[in-house]
Amino acid sequence: MIKVLIVGTGAIGGFYGSLLAKQGVEVSVVCRSEYQHVKDHGYQINSHALGSWIFKPARVLNNVADYQDQADYVIVCTKLVAGLDRVAMIRPAISTNTAVVFIQNGVEIESELVTAFPNHEIISGLAFICCNRTAIGVINHIDYGRLTLGKVGSDCTDKTRQLSEIFNNSGIQCQAVDNIVTVRWQKCVWNAPFNPLSVLSGGLSTEQILATQEPLVRNIMSEVCAIATAVGHPLPENIIDLNITSTYTMPPYKTSMLLDYEAGRPMEIEAILGNTVRAARRVGVDSPYLESLYATLNLRELTLNSSVKEQN
Amino acid sequence: MIKVLIVGTGAIGGFYGSLLAKQGVEVSVVCRSEYQHVKDHGYQINSHALGSWIFKPARVLNNVADYQDQADYVIVCTKLVAGLDRVAMIRPAISTNTAVVFIQNGVEIESELVTAFPNHEIISGLAFICCNRTAIGVINHIDYGRLTLGKVGSDCTDKTRQLSEIFNNSGIQCQAVDNIVTVRWQKCVWNAPFNPLSVLSGGLSTEQILATQEPLVRNIMSEVCAIATAVGHPLPENIIDLNITSTYTMPPYKTSMLLDYEAGRPMEIEAILGNTVRAARRVGVDSPYLESLYATLNLRELTLNSSVKEQN
Repeated sequence: MIKVLIVGTGAIGGFYGSLLAKQGVEVSVVCRSEYQHVKDHGYQINSHALGSWIFKPARVLNNVADYQDQADYVIVCTKLVAGLDRVAMIRPAISTNTAVVFIQNGVEIESELVTAFPNHEIISGLAFICCNRTAIGVINHIDYGRLTLGKVGSDCTDKTRQLSEIFNNSGIQCQAVDNIVTVRWQKCVWNAPFNPLSVLSGGLSTEQILATQEPLVRNIMSEVCAIATAVGHPLPENIIDLNITSTYTMPPYKTSMLLDYEAGRPMEIEAILGNTVRAARRVGVDSPYLESLYATLNLRELTLNSSVKEQN
Repeated sequence: MIKVLIVGTGAIGGFYGSLLAKQGVEVSVVCRSEYQHVKDHGYQINSHALGSWIFKPARVLNNVADYQDQADYVIVCTKLVAGLDRVAMIRPAISTNTAVVFIQNGVEIESELVTAFPNHEIISGLAFICCNRTAIGVINHIDYGRLTLGKVGSDCTDKTRQLSEIFNNSGIQCQAVDNIVTVRWQKCVWNAPFNPLSVLSGGLSTEQILATQEPLVRNIMSEVCAIATAVGHPLPENIIDLNITSTYTMPPYKTSMLLDYEAGRPMEIEAILGNTVRAARRVGVDSPYLESLYATLNLRELTLNSSVKEQN
């Protein structure tokens, strides 16, 4: 029996974990805030596409160190925010044959895991999904759900394909790809403008941003494309037009960064924007639009947990 | 006797008007919201530097059209915000020998007045002042106070110098200059970064902005300098260093745009930032930092008077 440990079991980890469990995988979860509730009742999953069910994890743990088993996959689903040490967090659960999977947003977020676990398969995952936690132990899957997986540093392996197939059999689309880093840059084309602008605008939807400032969005996207090319992951020529068109056809959408911001949770500024800007500086690509967004968003973050004394 | 009509008698118009009145000028004011109070009681002026006094205008008017007199100077002190038609607003008070004075923020804000009143002297004024209205009819002069005046389109005239001398005699510094347009660009070097960033950051003071994002501030200032040069108003080589140093030595300061934003008043986005960006486009100076700020600030403004429906 395949054994999986989900670390960071919020809406995304809980939902994808529940899909694996439906396919007969032994899925354990680490969750702190909901520990007792989930231990007693499991998760209530409500999916727009797949119906409703209860997900009872094999084991519910307070700490990764309590796992004491040989996981085939440890899947990290936390948000990638400042102060999170993924390596220290998962190390106690990594045994000889464990593959490390991370389903997280951002670019250039692989290296710390590759460095820490050089003898383990590292699988990079990107989720295109709308889901949220509406109450303790309740996860709503609202829209989309597609997952892309790829082994970091080489073409797909059987272990990556195996996980992908299980997800595919569970009812969502999952693709195992050879160029997962390129796919990350591809997703960054959308994330880099819309996530920061949704917050800096004070809460505009993607539709409102695009309707009034499409040239700005295109300028930001162009810089991401130039950086992707410079770091060896050129994107399709029409990627910007495709992103613009598909965003116009989406319903007005609140970005994940805006949802975090509105809920008072830390935002994934570094994974999405900071790493993009640092990649640009490293390879010498001039990125004034991204630099400007990044600096302004850092300023915005400063006021979230402080107040300014009024002095005129 | 010299006759002056102040149009837009908020804190700045009321304060500078009161200084002229102290020098024996016949100062009338147009004010709407405080009309009855000012008519009955005048303005209470409290100045950190010049003491406290009551300013009783010669006439208090509800409308410019009620003036029906020959003003030597009509001084416009309104904020320069969207929808304000300065020409229509002051036209009824302009007679043969009236000079049109505007004490307002921004660059390239002269032409509509020059076009509308080709046979009148147009005097451009910049105020470096902290003052505010703390209650109906009460104006507090908190800091600074310096005024710079210059005739638009030519060197200083006697009429400009006369007004400057009256202000100088009243206890503030007032300079009549030949290059007022250059001085506007010089002030824009400071305004262009700090005003927008104070709002986009959610309320940071100048000190906090500079302490964490000085490179961004310098990049924005460099673009303003390049535009100023391209439009024929090159600024001193050390202008950026001077601005940075003097801002570090100022007390933490809330910009005028931030004060407007926090009070729910319209912001001077176009005069300060929009005109700068349009000048850059006109003369072909690449200004991605200013473009980015301007677009983001326009997005921010959209949420001030609307709310976004949450749709995930």
